[in-house]
Amino acid sequence: MYDGIKGFRDFYPAEMAAHREVIDTVEDTAQQYGFREIATPALEETRLYVEKSGEEIVEDLYSFEDQGGRDVALTPELTPTVARMVVAKQQALAKPIKWYSTRPFWRYEEPQQGRFREFYQTNVDIFGSEEPEADAEILAFAADALTNLGLDAEDFDFRVSHRDILGGLLEAFDADIDTRAAIRAVDKSEKIEEAEYYDLLTDSGLSYEQAEQFDDLLATDDLGELTDFAGTDRVADAVENLQAVLDAAEDFGVREYCTLSLETARGLDYYTGVVFECFDSVGEVSRAVFGGGRYDDLIESFGGQPTPAVGVAPGVMNSTLPLLLQRAGVWPEEELSTDYYVLQVGDTRPVAARIARELRQEGNVVETDVSDRSFGAQLDYADSINAETAIIVGERDLEDDEITVKDMASGEQVQVPVDSFPGDRGRPTYDDFD
Amino acid sequence: MYDGIKGFRDFYPAEMAAHREVIDTVEDTAQQYGFREIATPALEETRLYVEKSGEEIVEDLYSFEDQGGRDVALTPELTPTVARMVVAKQQALAKPIKWYSTRPFWRYEEPQQGRFREFYQTNVDIFGSEEPEADAEILAFAADALTNLGLDAEDFDFRVSHRDILGGLLEAFDADIDTRAAIRAVDKSEKIEEAEYYDLLTDSGLSYEQAEQFDDLLATDDLGELTDFAGTDRVADAVENLQAVLDAAEDFGVREYCTLSLETARGLDYYTGVVFECFDSVGEVSRAVFGGGRYDDLIESFGGQPTPAVGVAPGVMNSTLPLLLQRAGVWPEEELSTDYYVLQVGDTRPVAARIARELRQEGNVVETDVSDRSFGAQLDYADSINAETAIIVGERDLEDDEITVKDMASGEQVQVPVDSFPGDRGRPTYDDFD
Repeated sequence: MYDGIKGFRDFYPAEMAAHREVIDTVEDTAQQYGFREIATPALEETRLYVEKSGEEIVEDLYSFEDQGGRDVALTPELTPTVARMVVAKQQALAKPIKWYSTRPFWRYEEPQQGRFREFYQTNVDIFGSEEPEADAEILAFAADALTNLGLDAEDFDFRVSHRDILGGLLEAFDADIDTRAAIRAVDKSEKIEEAEYYDLLTDSGLSYEQAEQFDDLLATDDLGELTDFAGTDRVADAVENLQAVLDAAEDFGVREYCTLSLETARGLDYYTGVVFECFDSVGEVSRAVFGGGRYDDLIESFGGQPTPAVGVAPGVMNSTLPLLLQRAGVWPEEELSTDYYVLQVGDTRPVAARIARELRQEGNVVETDVSDRSFGAQLDYADSINAETAIIVGERDLEDDEITVKDMASGEQVQVPVDSFPGDRGRPTYDDFD
Repeated sequence: MYDGIKGFRDFYPAEMAAHREVIDTVEDTAQQYGFREIATPALEETRLYVEKSGEEIVEDLYSFEDQGGRDVALTPELTPTVARMVVAKQQALAKPIKWYSTRPFWRYEEPQQGRFREFYQTNVDIFGSEEPEADAEILAFAADALTNLGLDAEDFDFRVSHRDILGGLLEAFDADIDTRAAIRAVDKSEKIEEAEYYDLLTDSGLSYEQAEQFDDLLATDDLGELTDFAGTDRVADAVENLQAVLDAAEDFGVREYCTLSLETARGLDYYTGVVFECFDSVGEVSRAVFGGGRYDDLIESFGGQPTPAVGVAPGVMNSTLPLLLQRAGVWPEEELSTDYYVLQVGDTRPVAARIARELRQEGNVVETDVSDRSFGAQLDYADSINAETAIIVGERDLEDDEITVKDMASGEQVQVPVDSFPGDRGRPTYDDFD
């Protein structure tokens, strides 16, 4: 007897059908915005993450030495991989580059509700535009994906922040500050006690009084206050950029889903501009549902031409998004569906197989007996797979050149000439012969 | 500068679109047979493969110890995982269980043409039927998938064999034979020199003369000769079963793709009955394209109720199937396609965004400017993404309450009232207004 590994899940057909519906909706939305599908490796060199992602991810890496002596890691996120791909074909790719893909990632974290060691994301990124319209298009895609899944403005909230506002404010303090550490503290602030948060801020180089002042500044609704406090072009530009992104989001029809929230920071080191996280408005799902943001320096740090970038990555399986959809009552209730069960009575396999084959050629889902079972057992199985129509091919009927078409829901049935079935009908049901 | 890892590939949009077409075709075919999608973990306990798959796979495992001290491996194949899943829910699952899934697997092999260390398979399995119709349905699915991809009987050949014929023949020799080793020798016979093949057979326990006789028997077209040679029920039953599978394949319309070939053995240890491999009929793709077969003992060896099983796994990416499709001239030539580019001239973002949004809501693929570019640069980009229609939203046109609908292929364009565009047209093009 074998078990699956802790933090990894098997998906059986009924559950998978619901998740497939979610994935299809998110991917269809990405396609409607002109994002194009890519596929990417499950393994990368470990140093990609050690050098680019920051300690939060590196601690949780599944890394090992392969048979060739390479230090490799199971990809914990997609961004370094797509950055590598952009650099590799930089000259050939028309800008803006707009890519999406859905696949699993792996992090050795402690499993909890909505968090697994293997989780699936649909990553959606734009490379090559520094304009606020690119940030807003990412917000618009994400909001459309959620509304297409059945959520509305009462259900979710994008908390929007700006890394350069956070960095510019920290820079304005008269202190030697580890900016990355301070931003990581902000990212953790909602998940930890206030005392621990202040410890992290003071560890990063702020005095306790400065930490209090910083925390007060982050709570403001008045972006002008931040510009005034810092008195630097950096903060003024960042505030202007954040406002421009929210203005574009207004034109794109998704401003209503966005809330200014400077306490939102994102955990990864490479973000540079607007960042955001999606939260359950009701708060029943307590952690962030997913997030994204701008990372303008990453491509250059990979050895490429300077290339601005912005992206988002909804978690579509083994993540908090299914919890939010369930909480909001819009989780897809998918059942197995089958167009036809072709039932054999006696030695009628050649005719049953011909009918099954022709129905499949029309694109129908068709099962037939592969277990040499009795009439009753076949009918039970047809029921268990929710077959809409049973085509009964019996020896006696065939002597009269007929088969029986049975509506499985009503139980009504009709005899039909075998030679002309299914003919060019495409998807014949009981009603066509009644 | 970072590189991907040897044996792993990045798929950019144009190449991915062709592979997606292949995957969709294979999955649609599986769905038409009533196979249901599942999803499975990328990691399993290493012992699953050590104990079940045989040495060929174990040598190539990506295995390591995780942070919790577990010996884990990147899944090199799906069969042990689905066997584990069947055992876990054995009572709840209606038989026959028919599952499919498409995902990557990993083996540390030497990369060569059509072989990578990361490769994608669509696994298709039936659990719970020992009848020849189940084997034949797997053959029929595989043949239909290939013909739906555009191949025909001149292009590919399923070489069909039977593990129990091989095992029964070996048993009939007066010798102490390591059957698994002898069957692995048969599996390798096409890839190695004859002398090495005979060395492997004699290492397994056959004398040189017995090895010659065994090799002669495998070359026969006359299954009766094998029954006569062995004189055992085991071989007689196996021959009868193989014939019954081929008869069912005849009824299912795929007998023409099958050739009797006892020299085919498959490398994995767990096969028990009919096995087959798909080959390029022309021989330009020299290795097997994919294979499958019956493994009736695996579920029981996992601690489950005895449950017969049969399956196949076409490799859909990073595999030999794309080589065969290219060789036969049926590789899908997919280009990026875009329904609309909404072009902004001047400060027209609110209107352009409204139009883009409404066109997307109808399911269209719509891009618009996110890079603050000139008219010419936007038009070049619209060309680069093969936009069918450009909607030009210009400041001056808007003063007259008009926009321009431009057919990108012909260059023809027409002015249209902005207020009623797109309205309820769904997918309006130049021709609708001409």
